[in-house]
Amino acid sequence: MQSPAVMPHREEIAHAVRRLLYQKLDRPMPRTVKAPHPLLVNISARHCHLTPKAVETLFGAGRQLTPKKWLYQDGQYAAEECITLIGPRSRVISNLRILGPCRDFNQVELAFTDSISLGFEIPVRNSGDIKGTPGCMLMGPAGFLELPEGVIRAAPHAHLHPDDAAFYGVKSGAYLRLRVGGPCSMTFDRVLARVSKDFKLEVHIDTDEANACGLAPGVQCELLA
Amino acid sequence: MQSPAVMPHREEIAHAVRRLLYQKLDRPMPRTVKAPHPLLVNISARHCHLTPKAVETLFGAGRQLTPKKWLYQDGQYAAEECITLIGPRSRVISNLRILGPCRDFNQVELAFTDSISLGFEIPVRNSGDIKGTPGCMLMGPAGFLELPEGVIRAAPHAHLHPDDAAFYGVKSGAYLRLRVGGPCSMTFDRVLARVSKDFKLEVHIDTDEANACGLAPGVQCELLA
Repeated sequence: MQSPAVMPHREEIAHAVRRLLYQKLDRPMPRTVKAPHPLLVNISARHCHLTPKAVETLFGAGRQLTPKKWLYQDGQYAAEECITLIGPRSRVISNLRILGPCRDFNQVELAFTDSISLGFEIPVRNSGDIKGTPGCMLMGPAGFLELPEGVIRAAPHAHLHPDDAAFYGVKSGAYLRLRVGGPCSMTFDRVLARVSKDFKLEVHIDTDEANACGLAPGVQCELLA
Repeated sequence: MQSPAVMPHREEIAHAVRRLLYQKLDRPMPRTVKAPHPLLVNISARHCHLTPKAVETLFGAGRQLTPKKWLYQDGQYAAEECITLIGPRSRVISNLRILGPCRDFNQVELAFTDSISLGFEIPVRNSGDIKGTPGCMLMGPAGFLELPEGVIRAAPHAHLHPDDAAFYGVKSGAYLRLRVGGPCSMTFDRVLARVSKDFKLEVHIDTDEANACGLAPGVQCELLA
């Protein structure tokens, strides 16, 4: 499933306008303006990725995910469908959003705050690296699905187009630093770089990280090699 | 009220032993060992400070706080007494711990996660700087107390003895950086230095910050000018 043809993101427009203005005024461009693409730092709230089979188990035979909101990465969406997560101590998180399209593995991404409220410990992992992680029970309108593993806290990471990777001087699998300004200014030292020609420059941090650094509109962010 | 005579904190003992070992072995001391005191980074969970009058309003005439657990800073303690915080949308936080001894102002310190769950916005402030901040309703076993202001997220800060301030080259009111290692390695860029001869070296971060950086026993921390 592909996202529909849409307007460029407002940050992409702003970035293009800024570059044009510096060119017109013949002024030296700051590094952030010189970058091939604007830097978006988005908050990844708790969510899960499911296989097509898991979706059918939870929502009924033949059911597929319905896009509710398209995300910044092409083709990625928050689905209409939510599930309930039941933790090891029978505490639950309701309305856990499913992100589509379906993957070939099941994975739940929580913040530490979530795992503490559920009463279990989860490791920090890169997406897809779920071997030996805790499992959980998922409940949907059509049934239950027990995950033997797959509950993680996703490490902060950056999606980069090869042009971005060249600009920031980083290879896929290496780490970048993300500096967030404002009153709670902090620098994330280990932001995993994931490079693909299908990616647009975007950093994902979780809700704990966003709350810690007070990420909000207008807070300056900078990506450093 | 003073904390009772107690054993030195295990980190103080470990620090003294480390220094002795380096001296005995005649090896150059790493910076962390050379420091006059060990660096403790502690998590400050949501709590409040109250005036003696507020304690009486909430717990009854003549009532005083009862120390439950002594904190690292001399004379500071978590009290037996807890209160209920009622936010602007009638959502509550139960068992909000009071830290003693009493202050000459009322102040509630929450993490952003707490304020989001209560449904209101709070600013990041240094302790005591509460002018123009949101208020809330407090409920105790003997009565209610409406705070017109005083709900903040406390900025990360470091308590330093003058010896520590000299070692790290910082003055009271200036900022230090705190580098936290491990898999979620990050650097807090604005850690307010508070210097007093009554202080022992200790950094306080809140639960959002601790969850973001994965602070746990064994995670290396370093204070930088």
